[in-house]
Amino acid sequence: MTDRVDPIRYRDAGVDLRAAESLTKRLAALVEGTRTADVGSDFGSFGGRFRLPGATELVASADGVGTKVLVAVRAGVHDTIGEDLVNHCVNDILAEGAEPLFFLDYFACGALEPEVAYAVIEGVARGCRANGLALLGGETAEMPGLYGVGEYDLAGFIVGRRVFDLPGRSGVAEGDRLVALPSSGLHTNGYSLARRILFDHMGLAPGDALPDLGAETVAEALLRVHVSYLAPLRGVLEQGRVRALAHITGGGIPGNLVRVLPSDLDAIVDPESWEPPRLFRLLAEESRLEAGDLYETLNMGVGMIAVVSADQERAVLADPGVRGAGGFPCGEIRPGTGRVRLEPAG
Amino acid sequence: MTDRVDPIRYRDAGVDLRAAESLTKRLAALVEGTRTADVGSDFGSFGGRFRLPGATELVASADGVGTKVLVAVRAGVHDTIGEDLVNHCVNDILAEGAEPLFFLDYFACGALEPEVAYAVIEGVARGCRANGLALLGGETAEMPGLYGVGEYDLAGFIVGRRVFDLPGRSGVAEGDRLVALPSSGLHTNGYSLARRILFDHMGLAPGDALPDLGAETVAEALLRVHVSYLAPLRGVLEQGRVRALAHITGGGIPGNLVRVLPSDLDAIVDPESWEPPRLFRLLAEESRLEAGDLYETLNMGVGMIAVVSADQERAVLADPGVRGAGGFPCGEIRPGTGRVRLEPAG
Repeated sequence: MTDRVDPIRYRDAGVDLRAAESLTKRLAALVEGTRTADVGSDFGSFGGRFRLPGATELVASADGVGTKVLVAVRAGVHDTIGEDLVNHCVNDILAEGAEPLFFLDYFACGALEPEVAYAVIEGVARGCRANGLALLGGETAEMPGLYGVGEYDLAGFIVGRRVFDLPGRSGVAEGDRLVALPSSGLHTNGYSLARRILFDHMGLAPGDALPDLGAETVAEALLRVHVSYLAPLRGVLEQGRVRALAHITGGGIPGNLVRVLPSDLDAIVDPESWEPPRLFRLLAEESRLEAGDLYETLNMGVGMIAVVSADQERAVLADPGVRGAGGFPCGEIRPGTGRVRLEPAG
Repeated sequence: MTDRVDPIRYRDAGVDLRAAESLTKRLAALVEGTRTADVGSDFGSFGGRFRLPGATELVASADGVGTKVLVAVRAGVHDTIGEDLVNHCVNDILAEGAEPLFFLDYFACGALEPEVAYAVIEGVARGCRANGLALLGGETAEMPGLYGVGEYDLAGFIVGRRVFDLPGRSGVAEGDRLVALPSSGLHTNGYSLARRILFDHMGLAPGDALPDLGAETVAEALLRVHVSYLAPLRGVLEQGRVRALAHITGGGIPGNLVRVLPSDLDAIVDPESWEPPRLFRLLAEESRLEAGDLYETLNMGVGMIAVVSADQERAVLADPGVRGAGGFPCGEIRPGTGRVRLEPAG
């Protein structure tokens, strides 16, 4: 089917970001009403901070893998989605300066298929081992009537301890540089859009080769595991070389980099400083989304952005972890109004 | 439809407990492989324990509310299911001697209906405030294709700190007494069975009056909020009067009391020491399940069992919190083989 009518917008794919945004504001008030004296973060941070007696500050986060689970189900590949989940959570609390301690999972399905459940949780356990954290507990729920046979959802909860000197938003200053770390693929966002384009619009099957992508199939490209940036960034974090981290998840670069921006500064990201991998270009072409919408929906090839002072940029880029992960300069911080601007350096 | 063929067994209602049990054993090995030096609990405890540097020991648990969510959806009552979830989680870590610190939720739906999502999370926030814990974070996921329009799932994650002197399994001894605390209803287990009996088999609608239950409707009876036993038990826990706690969830009294039994002792529970509320008797009659199956599926009116030494029993029963919650003696610990036996005192 090559008949194109309108660009496929994210809302058409069944996700209403605006309704979500308005709800988020009302939820913030609810959350505020439960604040105890030990809470050390504001609503909307990458992970919630909680101070224990003594100097220990915990950071916790809850997350899912979105409709990437439906790709896993459709492809019959169940043993990597758990690793996606762990890595996603690890990155979220890393952005709050935390090293992960333990993880708990929630796996819910329509009818328990032990091999599938085992494969999913095997992925969770592999992710935990790779990041050095304990799988402390979990819930496996069989919920006939809510989930279809063969379908499942997966959510995860992580707790870490703030050990890195990472000031965050308050430490970001004019002239700071942005260092991008490449993603491996979509990570865990934009799957409703990608499924609609690849499966519904282009009529591809999970086992089909992806146009112009060599031997990689659609399923392989879509199921590439979310990168954990803990190991690549540990060195520069331990050395205190990073001012803030933005984990690029739902909302893309604009929606996440803004979370570490003071209200009087803008982040200028040069979209020409890297070439989005072929999967992103294909989704861009087939969806015909405008660049703004595209960058607010998909990570476009960047999974984490570090804000570093100008005098640290060279050391950060030369760090073995950052270099090994393919880190590159992608922009800078300038006076502004708290916005993220995608502008070619020209 | 009054034609009864076979007793409605839990497996027929779509939940295969045996497959779950076998999977559980294999998952235990996976979890063991992620164990770090700081993990202080074994697989299968009510909450996972994690030691921080210093004397702090955290206890964490993940849970859902089972297909109680489908009752909430069908009844259009969304503002209490979150409280169920929080209270369930509070009780789980209470059984490991922990006072709750913070909570995170995962709410996933097919199409975001802001009013529904707000009501659900309002319930979560109410439960957090009532138990004195912070709602530290959460994830609201819109997943078209996985969840039907109007349907959602809800999972929660709690972290507490071990502050109560509650020895658990190792402290349970011959001659100890069992003190039961009444449940408010099904709490969050057995809903696949209950829905099948009440809606499918008996043909009742959520708004129908429940036979012999006065003015209470089916929905009201099914959606009664899971009791938090934190406030009722705080006094006796602070005084160190309790040896172990069993939170009666999936698996009923036998499946949960066994979790605090040493292998050389049995727990003798006298089912005639209380009368199961009308809802349980109705489900028993209509399902025609045998007592063993029934007590392994539903809590039958008991939401928490405290194991106390014989010389503490009187003080525990006289405690204002326990008395206010309706606590009563329901059995004792005798030499045995680690089994829970339902036997009338005779």
